[in-house]
Parts: sequence; C-alpha cells; structure tokens
Amino acid sequence: MSAAVLCIGTEITRGEIVNTNATWLCNELTALGYEVTEVVSVDDDRGRIVEALRRLGQVHELIACTGGLGPTTDDVTTESAALAAGDALVRDVASIEHIRTLFQRLGRTMGPSNTKQADFPSRATVIANPVGTAPGFYMRMGKALAVFMPGVPRETHPMWRDHVAPMIEALAPATTFQSRLRTFGKPESTVGELLRGVEELYPGLIIGYRASFPEIEVKLLARAGSRHAAERIVQEAEVEVRRRLGDIIFGEEDDSFVSAVATAVRKRGWHLALAESCTGGLVAQMLTSEPASDYLLLGVVTYANEMKTSMLGVPAEMLAEHGAVSEQVAVAMAKGACQVSGAEVGVGITGIAGPTGGSEQKPVGLVHWAVAHPGGVSARHRVFAGDRYRIQKMAAYAALALVRETAG
Amino acid sequence: MSAAVLCIGTEITRGEIVNTNATWLCNELTALGYEVTEVVSVDDDRGRIVEALRRLGQVHELIACTGGLGPTTDDVTTESAALAAGDALVRDVASIEHIRTLFQRLGRTMGPSNTKQADFPSRATVIANPVGTAPGFYMRMGKALAVFMPGVPRETHPMWRDHVAPMIEALAPATTFQSRLRTFGKPESTVGELLRGVEELYPGLIIGYRASFPEIEVKLLARAGSRHAAERIVQEAEVEVRRRLGDIIFGEEDDSFVSAVATAVRKRGWHLALAESCTGGLVAQMLTSEPASDYLLLGVVTYANEMKTSMLGVPAEMLAEHGAVSEQVAVAMAKGACQVSGAEVGVGITGIAGPTGGSEQKPVGLVHWAVAHPGGVSARHRVFAGDRYRIQKMAAYAALALVRETAG
Repeated sequence: MSAAVLCIGTEITRGEIVNTNATWLCNELTALGYEVTEVVSVDDDRGRIVEALRRLGQVHELIACTGGLGPTTDDVTTESAALAAGDALVRDVASIEHIRTLFQRLGRTMGPSNTKQADFPSRATVIANPVGTAPGFYMRMGKALAVFMPGVPRETHPMWRDHVAPMIEALAPATTFQSRLRTFGKPESTVGELLRGVEELYPGLIIGYRASFPEIEVKLLARAGSRHAAERIVQEAEVEVRRRLGDIIFGEEDDSFVSAVATAVRKRGWHLALAESCTGGLVAQMLTSEPASDYLLLGVVTYANEMKTSMLGVPAEMLAEHGAVSEQVAVAMAKGACQVSGAEVGVGITGIAGPTGGSEQKPVGLVHWAVAHPGGVSARHRVFAGDRYRIQKMAAYAALALVRETAG
Repeated sequence: MSAAVLCIGTEITRGEIVNTNATWLCNELTALGYEVTEVVSVDDDRGRIVEALRRLGQVHELIACTGGLGPTTDDVTTESAALAAGDALVRDVASIEHIRTLFQRLGRTMGPSNTKQADFPSRATVIANPVGTAPGFYMRMGKALAVFMPGVPRETHPMWRDHVAPMIEALAPATTFQSRLRTFGKPESTVGELLRGVEELYPGLIIGYRASFPEIEVKLLARAGSRHAAERIVQEAEVEVRRRLGDIIFGEEDDSFVSAVATAVRKRGWHLALAESCTGGLVAQMLTSEPASDYLLLGVVTYANEMKTSMLGVPAEMLAEHGAVSEQVAVAMAKGACQVSGAEVGVGITGIAGPTGGSEQKPVGLVHWAVAHPGGVSARHRVFAGDRYRIQKMAAYAALALVRETAG
C-alpha cells in the first residue's frame, strides 16, 4: 500500500520550522505497513494545495495531510480539499458546538472566524479533536483515502493515535511487525558491519539504522503474510542481532541510556557522586534529566585546577607532575567525589574539549575517565574526534557506560 | 523567482531521520529572495526521482536537490538526473583524482563503487566537495536550474555556502534583506502582541517568529525594488522592534544566549561559581558548551540536602525551617558558592522539577534562584509550567538572565 504525506504551511516552505510532523507520520505509516514514497510540503496556496492533492490522489492509496485547518484567512486546506474533490462545503453542527464549548471552557468568546473551522466538504467524515478547535476529516481523493489533521504536533498526535491510526490499520495490509534496539559504543558503520548478512538469513526482514548522536538505533522491521508471521521473523532475527551486538545494546523501543545506567546503579543500591572537568556538568545534567535524587548525591564541576584540590582533594603535586588531564587525576577526582560525599561510587572525568588547549602529547579530544567503586577503580582514556559538542557528549556517554559496566 | 526543494532518500520517507536539510535550504533560499512553494522528498527510486525532477522543472526556476550522491547502489540521483534531462553519463577525470586523493589521505583504498561518484550528466557542471567524496553538480532541468548536493548536512552546508549560494544569488532578484533578533524572557504570543502593527508601519516588511524553546527568534524580512531599499526597511523597522522588545533581546543572527551571558560577565572581569539543585548541572553544562575556563571556577550540584550543608555551608537549621526549596536556601547556596571558590559572583538554584515532589504550598515547577555579587544579592522565584525538561530549562535560562542583568 503506497502512501504520501502532505504538509501544508508557508512556515514550512519558508524554512521557519523543522517539519517534525512529516518524520513522525512517515515513521508511523511505515510501522503500520504502508510504503511512503513521497513527502510533499506546499505553502498555504489554494492552487498548489489542489494540484498536490489531485496529483497524489492519482498515485497513492493513502494521503496523510497536516496543517492549514486553523481559523485565520491563511488557512485554506479545507476549501482546497473540497475544490480538489469537486465537492461543496457544508457546516457541521456538532463541530460548532464542540468549538463553542472549548471557548467557554477557556473563558473566551468564539469569533466568526472560528465557525469556519466547522465547515467541511459534504462527502467528508469529521474527526473529533479533543485538544484543540480544529477538527480533522477524511474523504476520497482520486483513488486515495485522504486524511486531514491539524499541523500542531500537540493536536496531530492524539488525533492520529486515537482516531486515524486505528482506522488506517484496519485498511492496511497489517502484515508488519517492528522492534527497535538502542545501542551505544560503536559507530553506525561498525554496527552495520556486525549485522551484515542478517537480512539474508531472515527473508522479509529489513534492518534500519537511525543515528541520534552518539546513540545508534537498530530497527528490525518484517513484512509477511500475517502479523503473527512478521512478529516471528523479528523475534528470531532479534536473537541473532543481540548475539552479534552484545552489550552495546542498552535498551529497547524508547528506553533512554540514562535510565539504563540508573537502573544498573539502583539494582546495586549504590549512591553516586560526580567530578567533572571537560564535560562541564553534562553527566550531572544527563542523569538529572530523569528523577535521580534517590541515588545521585553530588556533582562537582571543577574547571579550575585549584578547585580540583580544594573541593576534591586532588594533590597539587599530582596536578603539577602529571597535568590536569591524566589518568592519575581522573582517578583522584573519582575517589575524591566519594570521599567528600560518602557515595559508594565516584566518577572522574578530565580532558580537553577544545577548540583550543591541545598539545602534541595531549591533543584536543583526549579524555581520561575513571570510576571508583567498592571493588576498586577502573580507568579508561581515548582521543575523541569532532568538535567540542561531540567530544563532551562522547566523554559523558563513555563515563556513564563505564558506570553501567561496573554495576554490571 | 519560484523555487522547489527536492530531498532524496528512503531514510526520509521511512521517517528514520528528521529532514533538517529541507528547513535549512528553505530558510536560505527565502533569505536570498526566492519564493519556495514546494518541498518534496522521495525515496531512492529512479522512476520517482525522474518524475519529480521533470514535474518541478516545468513549474519552478530553481530546484535545490540533496541526497543520493553516495557510492552505494542505493544512490541513484545522478543517473536519474541524466534520465530526466535525456542526457548521458560521462566520467569526470578531475573528480576521480579528488576522490583518490581523499582516500589516500584517510589511508584507505578507493573501491570501484567510488568511481561511480565521478560520473555526471554530460551537460552538468561539477561542484567541488571539499569535505567528502561526493561532488555536486548543476544543470538545466526543463525551465529550472537544478542543483544537486550531498545529503549529509556536514557536506551540504559548505558546498552551499562556498559555491551554490554565491551562484544563486547572482541569478536571484536580490531584492530582499533579512535580519534576526534573538530573545528570551517572554512567550511567543506576547512577543507577537508587542510587535502588533509593526508590519503595517513598514510596507514590504514581513515579521516571522521561530520558537526554539525557550528562545524566540524574531526575523525581519523585507522585499523591495533594490537590495538597498530592502535593507533600509529592515534597519528602520529594527529600531522600532528594539524599542518595543527592550532587554529581552540578547543577540542577533546566530548569537547564543550563553555567549551573551559570558560576554557580560567577562566585561566585568568577574569569576563565576554555580550551586545547582533542581537544574542538576544544566547551567554548568550550558556555560561549558562554549569555552568558559577563563571565568567559570566551579559548579556544584547538591541534590542531597546534606551536600548543601557540607559543600556549600547552607545551615542545616535553615533547611529544616524553610525547606530546601526557599529563597533563603537559594541565597545561601549562591553565597556559599562564592565562599568555597573565591568567585566574585555565585548563582544558587533550588526548586521542584517534578514529576513528583510537589505540594500545595510548593507545587511542581516552583523554582527559587539567586545571584550573589559584589553589590549584594538578587533573588527571584516563579512557578514554571510544563514537564521536567521545560521546568529545568526555564529555570536555567532565568538564572542566567539574572546573571546577565546583574552584570549588565
């Protein structure tokens, strides 16, 4: 089943907003078994909307449209849909009531422009919008079913999930199944090489990769005669994929790397203290992006050398002898974080994030990190490539990966 | 001058990556005076690429294409362009040499698939790629000039900036001028209300807004008979816009909020120390996303109450009497950060980021922040709306805005 996505709005064609709706809809449609082969955005122009709808209606079985359903005169999607299908607009009484109720609840008066949002092509079926004033609708457009949804993601998503996706799924071949594995620790090219030949082993399987730096998501999608058969292909392939990738897999579906680390630490009943230099608080910020007060005691960002000594007890002689960016200092920072906080586990990170500050012996990108734990200390180092952002991000992930490994 | 953007790649139509290239190109083309009315993405399919190129070539003066220039068999953009224009592929000797040199520099051997990247339509002009193996090219396509660039932003951007934009600008009507102002401190709707009527005062002016939470960018774009006239409209309007928005404007064009804060602190010759609780290191991470070692001495994340006492000297009685989330504690944290580090300026932030931990008196979203400085202490508080991410982000920005105001 072939599908197209049509996004309507001058803010898109002028480049004022990133069209995340399109990506999201493509992903959802692919997961439901549709093959999306075309994504189109046009500005709020009657002629171009009509032309796009007519053209896509000749080619695809499904058109998922977003945008242009608002109350202002710019919003011309509904009348363009009627024009494209050679239909007339009629007012929907139930929608008028819905919009009026919504305005009352907000303590605002409904303006005449809002009644426009209750006009629909006579052959369309209205889709309720529980969170906004713009109802959606669907109708035939050439050989396609065309579904029209609001463009604001906060309104698009629930309408899709509660109304459109169930309807579409019933029409779809429903012969796909998908699972996603989340990895950190190897670049996309290496992950791809490790999985070379897996698609051939499991006919019907498609492996996709999505890099969200520095994580790589591996998507296993199968198409088969039945949903059950597709699910079996994915499950069998997943065993092989897990065998090949090993512990770089930290989670599934929407699991976060941070929660994988937190879960490992919590299982041990450990408390954590952080001593960061080149990552500048990034590790603390990552951990506290989810509730962390039950295990995270302290984070210290010691940018100045004297702070490493006064706050963490790193000996000044050690700093002078080995330099701030050294294994010795990373270990002393990790141990110092434990000592000042009473935490069982301490993390120390020191390095050169750039763009300046590197030397031949200690180039930009060199990072030392260490984890002090009840069983001893582990220390690692590497020269990370890329700009300041990438070096800091890789260092933070690498240090947290070592915490996870230590908690094992 | 009408323009279209065409992005080629199955990873886009499957929803595996967000198409930031399209947004970026739309923005660039609009700034150069083109009217982009259509953005199309198709999968890596010869038939659909040919169809899209032929169709867009009948409608537009310019087609900016990205993607599908890689070495693998999936990448079929070049041969599709030749097909669409009824042209034949020929090998470009200079490009072969460029690719070979690049591989030598990387210590890798050039494979036969890479020679494919040196094949171009005979009527095309090759565009050098300084950072990757895929050169670009441009050629006539119907009535349009079609420009083909690699899809990886790291390669698209320099090719656009160094080669394509200067060429396109020479062809463009060149009757636009644009400036951007960056703001923090008021929601988009309020910024919009403050600027109501400005477009009417300056005929030819279009005001656009781009929200990149929690910042709002205000774009002033003018179309006029000459570039000079357009520039004058924007400059005159900018005076009025600055008058209306006042000090929520922190910068222009690509200025970052962090660098606005850092510049204000550096002007004073101050050193900074941070004491964060609910923001969990976010302020430190933001400041250290740019080089900061000349003014940032220390960051402390005191998640546990005992750490506030032992690391920052916040009295245990104060914590017991007023609670950790209070103005008194925010002030004591700010002062403590100064004392332990010797910094002139200290920042203290304490609050409830949620999703749990709130009460009727102290709801989720309540944040107290304080800045201790040579002239005294400033303290503020607010209940921020939204999820944990938004509360933390708003709190970090608000605290840094107070630092900027104090230094200002």
